[in-house]
Parts: sequence; structure tokens; C-alpha cells
Amino acid sequence: MSALRLPSVVAGKTLTEVISMRVNGKPCRTIWPLSDAAVAVIDQRCLPHQFKTVELTNVAEAAAAIENMTVRGAPLIGATAAYGMALAMRADCSDAAVASAADLLQQTRPTAVNLLWALSRMRSRLLALPSSERLQAAWQEAAALCEEDVALNEKIGQQGLALIEACYQKTGRTVNVLTHCNAGWLGTVDWGTALAPIYQAADAGIPVHVWVDETRPRNQGASLSCWELGQHGVAHTLLPDNAGGHLMQHGQVDMVIVGCDRTARNGDVCNKIGTYLKALAAHDNSVPFYVALPSPTIDWQITDGVKDIPIEQRSADEVLTVTGLLAGEESKLATVQIAPAETAAANYGFDVTPARLVTALITERGICDASEAGLLSLFPEQAHE
Amino acid sequence: MSALRLPSVVAGKTLTEVISMRVNGKPCRTIWPLSDAAVAVIDQRCLPHQFKTVELTNVAEAAAAIENMTVRGAPLIGATAAYGMALAMRADCSDAAVASAADLLQQTRPTAVNLLWALSRMRSRLLALPSSERLQAAWQEAAALCEEDVALNEKIGQQGLALIEACYQKTGRTVNVLTHCNAGWLGTVDWGTALAPIYQAADAGIPVHVWVDETRPRNQGASLSCWELGQHGVAHTLLPDNAGGHLMQHGQVDMVIVGCDRTARNGDVCNKIGTYLKALAAHDNSVPFYVALPSPTIDWQITDGVKDIPIEQRSADEVLTVTGLLAGEESKLATVQIAPAETAAANYGFDVTPARLVTALITERGICDASEAGLLSLFPEQAHE
Repeated sequence: MSALRLPSVVAGKTLTEVISMRVNGKPCRTIWPLSDAAVAVIDQRCLPHQFKTVELTNVAEAAAAIENMTVRGAPLIGATAAYGMALAMRADCSDAAVASAADLLQQTRPTAVNLLWALSRMRSRLLALPSSERLQAAWQEAAALCEEDVALNEKIGQQGLALIEACYQKTGRTVNVLTHCNAGWLGTVDWGTALAPIYQAADAGIPVHVWVDETRPRNQGASLSCWELGQHGVAHTLLPDNAGGHLMQHGQVDMVIVGCDRTARNGDVCNKIGTYLKALAAHDNSVPFYVALPSPTIDWQITDGVKDIPIEQRSADEVLTVTGLLAGEESKLATVQIAPAETAAANYGFDVTPARLVTALITERGICDASEAGLLSLFPEQAHE
Repeated sequence: MSALRLPSVVAGKTLTEVISMRVNGKPCRTIWPLSDAAVAVIDQRCLPHQFKTVELTNVAEAAAAIENMTVRGAPLIGATAAYGMALAMRADCSDAAVASAADLLQQTRPTAVNLLWALSRMRSRLLALPSSERLQAAWQEAAALCEEDVALNEKIGQQGLALIEACYQKTGRTVNVLTHCNAGWLGTVDWGTALAPIYQAADAGIPVHVWVDETRPRNQGASLSCWELGQHGVAHTLLPDNAGGHLMQHGQVDMVIVGCDRTARNGDVCNKIGTYLKALAAHDNSVPFYVALPSPTIDWQITDGVKDIPIEQRSADEVLTVTGLLAGEESKLATVQIAPAETAAANYGFDVTPARLVTALITERGICDASEAGLLSLFPEQAHE
């Protein structure tokens, strides 16, 4: 892996203290600035088979990295967009440049609301300053947004840890958590959302085992969640997306924890396609279904998530083919076609789980009902005036 | 493709009249005898990329073909087992040979009850005869069982056609049917179970479109259902297994029709892993959920399917890898690994959908409630005395 080019001491703490996640035992984040001239990210398209980092040097490269899923996960998309704005300021600090960079970044992916939130925050901050101060302010703001993401996720981890701990106290045996897609460290700057409670439970010595949904068509569970759980030493088992209902029917799942790309004001949660099916199975088997989300994932403007959250449609090729390590070859990636040539395929990136199926939302401020009242109990500043 | 070595005229009808399904426009079944010396089957592991037939010449080869999924699908497993008994009789017609052949075949796969049904029928038929008559009787009985399978499936098709037709009459637009796995022609001797109504609807000129679940981990939807629907010219779109709930939420599915590997006396249905999740989504969105099954699929002895139907567990390799046509190569198959090396994976072959989620069962005798009363209304001879 590339060495991290972060300062070795941050706010009086060493990197090992500041960064929770490890790659081959070394502290690592998913995004970090390189001397205010570029931003480094992990190319998540190559995992788990190859660990590569990519340098983004301008706003177009940042937009492409979001669009082509070099980076993914709602919080990390927001962080990358923020740094994309900083990269844009290197070329041009005018009002027009702020607007066009935000537009370019906004068009990359439609579903995760953190993207809109991060761009809105960067735009407001920059337009309030004279153009001569925007370059430095943009880098500072992007860095601040990333630090806040880490802090929010750490708090989500603490909140969720209490749920896992309570389950362990009750059963006295390994806690089995099912998760869908990757809402781990790799989808954020550090810690993750759905996986943060799991990492904290493991760190606290609670025996925890994760059922990892493969998450077709892009296999983020198989490729990313399995990889980062393995790096952290957390016990886990990969499952076809089809299997979770059967496991819940037979008492093999204690709780489901998933992440979220956009939470509506009414508590409906939009997450990776297939989440809704797991929520139905959890509900049918009285398995608690938790959604972990930092508050920038909440869209306070949308009051009916099922109806109004825009669902990204992606290329049919993601469904028609699978990429992986070629059997028998040390490090060669290959793509195989799994259906007859000329087969049509549909590829919806996300679905929306109605609030009625969600046991609770885990936020940085606490755990609440998946409802407007529940959310407002933690975020009273969002009440309509 | 290999030429079919069936007689060109059966019972006064030409092959084209007798066989409903086509491969490259030519009539074809999934299994056929070769002069009472061998049995030919399609090697379904090579589809959709290669059409190959395999000759089975002894009972061990028949058992291996079932176990390694050269043939699959509950009715076709039963048909192959019946011919496996006939192949066994070529070597030895003793009582001991009948028993040991049946034992060998029975151990191949645990979930589909048609296997037990076919073996029980063959065993009873053969043991009732002097050993000198068993060889000829075995071939006749296996052929009869296959003909009955075709007739049962054709009737299932007619029953299900009425449901599709009623939907078309009501909406006046293309009927969208979602199916899981492959319960088509390839899973039976001809016609299929879940797909039989769809073929009959298409043949009757009703506009029908099929949403085909990919069906990980073995991708029977992507590889087999897409292929046979394409051969029959039926419009279809491949979906990740994760997508069906979203489509149902948004009114894009008129009904679900799936097949079945074992139906319990109480109407619980065991089918390919993931079926239960689609039944939950159908129920949550008031989409009719139908299960098509010939009566040999009913296990009258099991009164609680969720609790008592044995669920096959298969190799983790099926989850950890995907096989398909290597991109950029004309006809080279390759296998890719999708998770980190050393990842553990669970692979349950089937799940059980509780009867409460099933709108109706489609059998050769008619459509009934998924309940003991419903089943007994069509099969009164199974009432306890």
C-alpha cells in the first residue's frame, strides 16, 4: 500500500491514536489531503484483490471518482465532494467557479443526500468569503467536514455498541449481526456507520459475528465488508443476498444493522437495493432492524421516502457481468458474463425501507424511533417554525 | 446441439407436435432414452454459453448427474432418478440391486421430494415383478413417469394461463410476472412449472414480460431462465435478487410465479433460497404470489414445512466464486473469486415460504389455497382415514 502522507501527529495525538482503522496493521483513512495540492483515495473498485490508492488533482477527477465508484458510500461521497470543491479552488476562486464545481459534483450520483449536504455547506462557506480567501478556506472546510464525519461515526459506534452489549448480556453468547452492502470504514472517512458499533463491540471484547450479504450486483459486501472486517479481525461469514430470510427464520440473526444513503423526515430509509427485503424478513421474524446514520444523511425536506427519494439506475453491465480474481492466477482480475448475450437487465441502485419496518435509527445523538417525532426528539432544531 | 435421438413419431404425432420446447428452433426435451442402453440429458452447468448433452450409461452416472447438478429442478431430478433405476437394471435386476440403486440415488440431494417419490414408485413397480421382467418394466416406467410429468406441467400451464389472462383482461397491458430461479422447461421434462403458464400465455398471444431473478449463488435465473425464455421468444429482463421488492413497491410486478421443491401438507412451500424474501415483498405490496407445482412435489407426511423440510447446504465455493463467459473471449468459460481469500461463506440451497404468504398453489388439478384444506379439496384421496 502507499504510505499515508498525513502529518504524523494530529492535535497532539499520533496517527495510531487518531485513526481507528488498519490496513495490514497500519492506520489508514479512506481519503486524505496531499499538501493542499491533491487528495488521495483508496480505489475501492480494486478491492479486495488489490489495494491501490489514486490521487485526485482537480475537480473533474473528483467528480469522476464519485461517478465511477472509485469512492462510494454516502459519507465518503460527501467528503470527496468537499475536497473536490477545494481542488476546484486551486484553478479558479470566482463565484462562477464555485457554482460550476458544485454543479459538476452534484450531478455525479442522485441518491445519497450527503453529497448535496456537503456541497451546500462548501458553497455557503466559500461564497461568504472574498475570493482571495477561498482556496485556503476550502481545504480547511473539507478537512473539518472529514473530522466531523469521523467524530459522528465514532458516536454512532458508541450508541450501537450499547445495543450489541445488551444482546450479549441477555444471551451470553456470540451476537450475530446481519449487514447489507458496505456501510463500514470504507463508506466513510473512518469507523463506518453500520459497522462502527461492530468494531467497537469487537474492541470491547464482546464476541460478535457478522453475516455479510454479498450485495449484488456490485458485491460490496463480498468485496469490501468482508475485506475490512477481515483487516479488523472480526468474525464474519459471506451470504448470498437470498439467504438472510432463511437465517432469520431459524434464529441465526440477533439483529440487522445497515447504513443509509438518505433518511426521509418520516423515517423512511433509502439504502442499497435489497435492504427492504431484509427489513421485511426481520419484521416477519421479530429480529430488530437498525439503521445507522450520521445526521448529514437525513433529508429534512422529504416527507415520504418511498415516494420521493430519487433512485439511481445504473448500467445493465453491472448485472450481466461479475468481476473478480481469475481462478488459478495470482493477481489477474477478469470479468465474466453470466447471462446469454443480448439479455436485458435492470439495475436499480437503491430501495427505500418504510419506517414501519425499522426498529430504530442509530444517530450520533442517540437512538430514536424511525419517525418524524423520533428524529425531532434528537434534532429539535429541525422542527418547522 | 446434438441431434435428438428420439423416434421421429410418438403416438401418431410428430416430434414437433409432442414437444413444446425448442432449442435453436428444434424440438427438445431435457432428458431422453437412447435405445434402452443409455439416457441423454442436457448438461445444464454449461448453459447458457454452451449447449452440451451428456450420456448416462449406469446408475452411478445418473446419481452423479443429479448430485453435481448436470440436471436440476425437482421434476427433472425425479425423472433422472427413474431412468437411473432403469440403468441400474441393465447390470443387475435382483432385489438387492433395486434397493441399492434406490439408496444411491436417494442420497444425492435432500430437499426435492420428487426424488423420493420417483424412487418409491420405481421400487414398488420393480419389486412387484419377477426379476426377469424388471429391466423392460423399468424403462417403460421411467418413460411413463416422464410423459406424466409433461402432461402435469401442461395442465399447470393451462391453470396458470387463466390467471395471466385475467390480469391482462383487467389491465389491458403487458402482464409483468416475476420469477425466481429456474422452474421452467429445464427443471422438468418439458414445459416447466412456474414458466408453463407464461409459455402458454405467450403462445396464446397475451403480452407477457418476465422479471427474472438472477438467483445467486448458482445463477439459475441468469443462466437458465433467461436462456429458455429467449429460446421461446418471451420478453424478459434480468434482475439482481435484491431488486424485486423495489419493483413491487412501485407497481412494476403484476404477479409472482415460482416453482417448488417440496410442498408441505399445510401449504408451506420449499423453493430455491430467496423465495421467502420475494413472498414477503409480494405480501407487503398486495402482489399475488403463486406457486406452481405438480402433485409429486407435495409431501403429504410433513405438516410444518418451515420446521421440518430438510434444507440442503452446499459448498461455500458456489458463494465465493462466479463462473461465466470470459469477457472478450468467444467461448471460454472462467471462474472468478469475488471475496478475499479465506472468507467463510454459508450456502443454504432452499428456504421455506410459510403458507400464509402464498396467494394460491397452481397444481395440475386446479388452483387452491395454500393450506391442508385447499390441497385436500383437489386431492381428497390424501385425507387421513
